[in-house]
Amino acid sequence: MKLGRLNHIGVATPSIADSVAYYRDTMGAIHIGEPFDLPEQGVKVCFVDTPGHDGTEGTQIELIEPLGEQSTLRTFMEKNPLGGQHHVCYEVPDIDAAREWFEGKGKRILGPTRIGAHGTPIFFLHPKDMKGQLTEIMETPKEAH
Amino acid sequence: MKLGRLNHIGVATPSIADSVAYYRDTMGAIHIGEPFDLPEQGVKVCFVDTPGHDGTEGTQIELIEPLGEQSTLRTFMEKNPLGGQHHVCYEVPDIDAAREWFEGKGKRILGPTRIGAHGTPIFFLHPKDMKGQLTEIMETPKEAH
Repeated sequence: MKLGRLNHIGVATPSIADSVAYYRDTMGAIHIGEPFDLPEQGVKVCFVDTPGHDGTEGTQIELIEPLGEQSTLRTFMEKNPLGGQHHVCYEVPDIDAAREWFEGKGKRILGPTRIGAHGTPIFFLHPKDMKGQLTEIMETPKEAH
Repeated sequence: MKLGRLNHIGVATPSIADSVAYYRDTMGAIHIGEPFDLPEQGVKVCFVDTPGHDGTEGTQIELIEPLGEQSTLRTFMEKNPLGGQHHVCYEVPDIDAAREWFEGKGKRILGPTRIGAHGTPIFFLHPKDMKGQLTEIMETPKEAH
């Protein structure tokens, strides 16, 4: 497997509304998407675009806020009440091949492959097997999003 | 101020040698730099390149390992023995203007502006003022590096 694009870093926040104001007013972000719910993952999501080289799309910031009482994000927020860096997400061309690759490496995959925030298949890998980083693997969208 | 490129994310590790093997063999990284010491920051550093869109440079992974007994990274490693996400670094065109901007916003800047791992001026902002993220601001290198 060849390392893919760092699609986004997941940043947890107690309030997407406050974080949107922060990225706009303090960090100077221009392109911020509309927040939406991802009930399967127990999170509300909002993407902040960062610029890449030469006018290309850069790595996004995926703001995530706990959604519902059962959100797995609640434990993270208890330890990090201000929020902070939560996961990294790399693109792959073929999600099934990637799953097989990481299984072959003995890495623990957290649950089934499912549809992620960009509408393509994703899975998560256990941070203890990934040098302390909760790692999301996502299939590259077929068209620019 | 306009949001700049996410130059790198800083990822702490107890062993750059182990992490280099991980990024090469598990994640499939192709371009991994040579490790070097940054004694002023109390870290050993190694950059892992990730691909951007359309053949451009993507956001890098900056591996950092504690260097010396006084390394400020030691506290982080005690809490996170496996390592993990440590900071984010955004580029700006002018470091002095950026410093003034964040000071004007009442953000705590950690120490003086100094030369960072890419050889350009940088400073760090307090994570408690930056939504839980230790945030590095770096002047964009004048030439491709």
